[in-house]
Amino acid sequence: MLRVAVVGATGYTGYELLRLLQHHPAVAITELFSTQLEGEPTDTLFSGQHKLPKTFKTFSADEDYDIDFLFLAVPHATTHEYMHKLEKKSYRVIDLSADFRLNDTELYERYYQIKHANPQLLQKIPYGLPELYFDAIKHSRIVANPGCYSTTAILGLYPLCEAGLVEHVVIDAKSGVSGAGKTLKKSSLYCEVNEHLSAYATNNHRHQAELIEHLNVPHVFSPHLIPMMRGILCSSYVQTKTKINIDELVALYSDFYKECTFVTVQTGKLATTQSVIGSNRVEITLCIQNDAVIVFSASDNLIKGAAGQAIQNMNIMVGLNEDLGLPLLGQAV
Amino acid sequence: MLRVAVVGATGYTGYELLRLLQHHPAVAITELFSTQLEGEPTDTLFSGQHKLPKTFKTFSADEDYDIDFLFLAVPHATTHEYMHKLEKKSYRVIDLSADFRLNDTELYERYYQIKHANPQLLQKIPYGLPELYFDAIKHSRIVANPGCYSTTAILGLYPLCEAGLVEHVVIDAKSGVSGAGKTLKKSSLYCEVNEHLSAYATNNHRHQAELIEHLNVPHVFSPHLIPMMRGILCSSYVQTKTKINIDELVALYSDFYKECTFVTVQTGKLATTQSVIGSNRVEITLCIQNDAVIVFSASDNLIKGAAGQAIQNMNIMVGLNEDLGLPLLGQAV
Amino acid sequence: MLRVAVVGATGYTGYELLRLLQHHPAVAITELFSTQLEGEPTDTLFSGQHKLPKTFKTFSADEDYDIDFLFLAVPHATTHEYMHKLEKKSYRVIDLSADFRLNDTELYERYYQIKHANPQLLQKIPYGLPELYFDAIKHSRIVANPGCYSTTAILGLYPLCEAGLVEHVVIDAKSGVSGAGKTLKKSSLYCEVNEHLSAYATNNHRHQAELIEHLNVPHVFSPHLIPMMRGILCSSYVQTKTKINIDELVALYSDFYKECTFVTVQTGKLATTQSVIGSNRVEITLCIQNDAVIVFSASDNLIKGAAGQAIQNMNIMVGLNEDLGLPLLGQAV
Amino acid sequence: MLRVAVVGATGYTGYELLRLLQHHPAVAITELFSTQLEGEPTDTLFSGQHKLPKTFKTFSADEDYDIDFLFLAVPHATTHEYMHKLEKKSYRVIDLSADFRLNDTELYERYYQIKHANPQLLQKIPYGLPELYFDAIKHSRIVANPGCYSTTAILGLYPLCEAGLVEHVVIDAKSGVSGAGKTLKKSSLYCEVNEHLSAYATNNHRHQAELIEHLNVPHVFSPHLIPMMRGILCSSYVQTKTKINIDELVALYSDFYKECTFVTVQTGKLATTQSVIGSNRVEITLCIQNDAVIVFSASDNLIKGAAGQAIQNMNIMVGLNEDLGLPLLGQAV
Repeated sequence: MLRVAVVGATGYTGYELLRLLQHHPAVAITELFSTQLEGEPTDTLFSGQHKLPKTFKTFSADEDYDIDFLFLAVPHATTHEYMHKLEKKSYRVIDLSADFRLNDTELYERYYQIKHANPQLLQKIPYGLPELYFDAIKHSRIVANPGCYSTTAILGLYPLCEAGLVEHVVIDAKSGVSGAGKTLKKSSLYCEVNEHLSAYATNNHRHQAELIEHLNVPHVFSPHLIPMMRGILCSSYVQTKTKINIDELVALYSDFYKECTFVTVQTGKLATTQSVIGSNRVEITLCIQNDAVIVFSASDNLIKGAAGQAIQNMNIMVGLNEDLGLPLLGQAV
Repeated sequence: MLRVAVVGATGYTGYELLRLLQHHPAVAITELFSTQLEGEPTDTLFSGQHKLPKTFKTFSADEDYDIDFLFLAVPHATTHEYMHKLEKKSYRVIDLSADFRLNDTELYERYYQIKHANPQLLQKIPYGLPELYFDAIKHSRIVANPGCYSTTAILGLYPLCEAGLVEHVVIDAKSGVSGAGKTLKKSSLYCEVNEHLSAYATNNHRHQAELIEHLNVPHVFSPHLIPMMRGILCSSYVQTKTKINIDELVALYSDFYKECTFVTVQTGKLATTQSVIGSNRVEITLCIQNDAVIVFSASDNLIKGAAGQAIQNMNIMVGLNEDLGLPLLGQAV
Repeated sequence: MLRVAVVGATGYTGYELLRLLQHHPAVAITELFSTQLEGEPTDTLFSGQHKLPKTFKTFSADEDYDIDFLFLAVPHATTHEYMHKLEKKSYRVIDLSADFRLNDTELYERYYQIKHANPQLLQKIPYGLPELYFDAIKHSRIVANPGCYSTTAILGLYPLCEAGLVEHVVIDAKSGVSGAGKTLKKSSLYCEVNEHLSAYATNNHRHQAELIEHLNVPHVFSPHLIPMMRGILCSSYVQTKTKINIDELVALYSDFYKECTFVTVQTGKLATTQSVIGSNRVEITLCIQNDAVIVFSASDNLIKGAAGQAIQNMNIMVGLNEDLGLPLLGQAV
Repeated sequence: MLRVAVVGATGYTGYELLRLLQHHPAVAITELFSTQLEGEPTDTLFSGQHKLPKTFKTFSADEDYDIDFLFLAVPHATTHEYMHKLEKKSYRVIDLSADFRLNDTELYERYYQIKHANPQLLQKIPYGLPELYFDAIKHSRIVANPGCYSTTAILGLYPLCEAGLVEHVVIDAKSGVSGAGKTLKKSSLYCEVNEHLSAYATNNHRHQAELIEHLNVPHVFSPHLIPMMRGILCSSYVQTKTKINIDELVALYSDFYKECTFVTVQTGKLATTQSVIGSNRVEITLCIQNDAVIVFSASDNLIKGAAGQAIQNMNIMVGLNEDLGLPLLGQAV
């Protein structure tokens, strides 16, 4: 059994990670870290017989822990301070924060508005999107887990981009509210969100920096907040350099993802988040309207967009089957 | 007082129309028609002391009624059969169905998959979008009330289109569920809609026919179903023929809509349905990202997209103030 | 036209009040007060052409205003400080806060945990529930507007209580989230409320004090938070002193409320908030199970439970028709 | 590995059962039955790489299947026709329909309005509520899985009832919408359910028959529909025969459930469905108001109220740990 520790169990992502890890047949959760709840019994947070460690500790990069794997489910602008210390640890690390997702220091500092404390590590730590970077992930001791929008948009567009077919793309991205976390702000109140729909961060969403690095095509990225808890749908409208028909399009995608358990390519079907919520899957629906290619890509922002992908990365890093312990069936209701 | 009759009070649009008409200071609702509920007391449908006519009748185009105004809140493929008879009536008519929205018979028959019984009337009856066609509406005895998506998308894009600035536009449209009406289908069930987000009718939504006629620019139209009851947000991504900056853009729109009570033009603000739900307003938020113009337009699909706009048209047709009896303030919750 | 001022337009209740007042045919809103937004243009809060006063002022009880009517839509523990000054003003006042709802100072201080600054006024200011206290309201210059739970529960149970038939009653009360206001707290976040259902304040909800004064029977009051924005349903389970059958029960209620426009008494129908949301009505559904009387009473917490009832009180106080400007039809969606 | 078959995979309960079984470490799903989808590939229903059997078959009680365990996730009035044939099979059976939940034929026929075809089996098949009837379940080849309301209400009240302390109880039960299944009816449409709250089936809900048999105390049962997908909260108001204080109450419940992994007893905490949704747990929150005992019991209607409890029963019947493969942590969002 892998002895696994989680830092940041009080957020939605950290909690989801615990839920999934608890059902993982090769994992024992042996440490729970939370600065906020240090010293408190975990019963404060988890009702009933949860079989988790009894007490929250505060994580320190200077201490050694008897663990095989560490998940950092913490806010950005945190791990860049101490990641160089974790490089030398006996355990492997997945960083779910944004601090090591980018390669380009300048891009990080522009989008996150802070100075990066460990720029030399930025290029060294691979971007944990296994469908694209399986080998780099497999051979690294530290992996940066991608953003939820980025995961969904990049998987939806990569085959076209890599084939050099993209002239321009509009990515209209729609997300449930759990992505905003538990921070207290008026715009996250039930009566402000419910039954309302809004665009936000139109010109400055941080996940766009990951699109710039991995898609590398001219694009517009426009996120929207949807009155639901989980789920992302990216509707991408591609102006291609040369005409492509639907059969060629499906062939391109099916071939690209033919060995990817968690990616489904389809056409002639409704694109919906319903069949991916609760699973670690991304569903890509392809169609063409008036010469424009439309790619819908859907995922669960807390699973394939966060906690599930982190476990997928862990599986790869320790040589387990990529899909071990990860849900394939979505949650109908 | 205008003596007003409504056909089709059992649907969501018909009901909303009654609610608004009941608060209109110049209106008395004197007849309620419903084929489905013929002969039944209106108490079957309306609880409490509602002050509406006592009994539902069946509407007939062959009969004469002692009314000044008739609203047809009925499904498409209905009114094209009998509209020629209403031309000669003493009362004026607003058709909320889709049967006379288009000018082009071929376009109608392609999108609605039926033969139009009164094609010669199609060109005669004006399209009831008062911000564009005020005079035609004012001088007509019959008006075709636009679709909800069409109202929102057209108002969002018309100034740019009319100025000849649009090379291509992607309209990613998002709507609440009331647009689908009360028809029993699996995709309208609570557990299928709630917490789920989907694209639908990607290549064949009927409202696109109205965009073809009134915008007349190359475009992609892609509707989405949002888990909420009311509200439409059209996010339109415009590739312009020549570069335009944000100030020019705001000036273009502000000037175009300067006399329109129900259209708000803004920039630097969140585009949201929250401030338009419950009102007859359309809110247009303008921004620019990487040379692309982004226009967000938001409305309440049952009010500005249906019942409210019908009343706005009525006001114009009978010479009342355009905004009489229509809500300006949205519904915060 | 009544010149009307509103203090506290930024909360959900104050906003709803403005929406309703704006459609009231005998009202002109001439002043808007908000301590929070003092000096700011009202455009900050209201989009589009709203036809409201241009600027927010701070209300002062020491100043005189050229108004006929003042609505205080402010938190509790506010108006008890200065209400004695408003007694002598030329304008009439409706206090939507809780400060003058009770008669009994001790009860106020127990439930609100503060010392009341004007206890002598407590008994003087009538409780603004027009279906019970029409005459007192009519002849008063200041009226205390009831709580939302209290309005719904009291109207549901009063006929049985007044007839001396109640041995004991369990009131299981269920409310939408807007009742909690815009205060930032974790329990009001979308992801905490949505898809979840909870009991709260089981032994100390402040509205229970109003039940103690106006129902005056042994009872249990148990509020629940429902994942929706508006609406209250009180399910009351009454153990009667003597057996009563359903016909007698309906007769008792129908007779009691026979002159009340806003109260509907029914049986054999589903009890639901759907037909009252958006209206100023209370719907009472009666049934009997195993000798227990079950009374369901439903209302819109922001209208009959707050803003609408305040306007109903205003109408009565100035001699207008009680239902002037108030919606009778609920909002289907 | 247990070879497991599921009849009725297209409903919400059947689907949830598959999701849970797929993560069960001792289970292989070897057959999927659906009359509706006979002969169709399971890809019709399940997206992506789901690792389930390839094709749906129609189940027949006359055929033999090479399986160890059969789950019948079918509507009531189905299995009573053929259950006597399953008695002799080599595999064990859990019936999730209502057909064998009751002991009393007369009660069944009154509540279900049909004649029972196998009344002699009614008394023989145990009621699958493991916290009460562990031994009977362990030694039976067929088990009837309880209703969702019944599970939640009975576990909430049994200790008090069994101790002979209950004079009378009011059970105000609140459920999410998935309990109504996928049947097309107006009352299940999104726009009818969402933002609305209603009481229903006040005097004739079928689960009440189970309360009559297992609680055996005078009671009122009153179900409500809540605008959410999953979750049940039963608020039970108990008039006790003798006074009991909160410490005695907690002691009674803690002692009764001390060996039950899936039951949590608590006091001084908010009663909510949030911490049980997604888990197989029931959370019981105890309090006292004015001498009345209030018991809140919460569960996930599709898990502890259906699919999860079925697996718990399976585990017991085959001698596995009761909690094997069942989620302990709820789903925060």
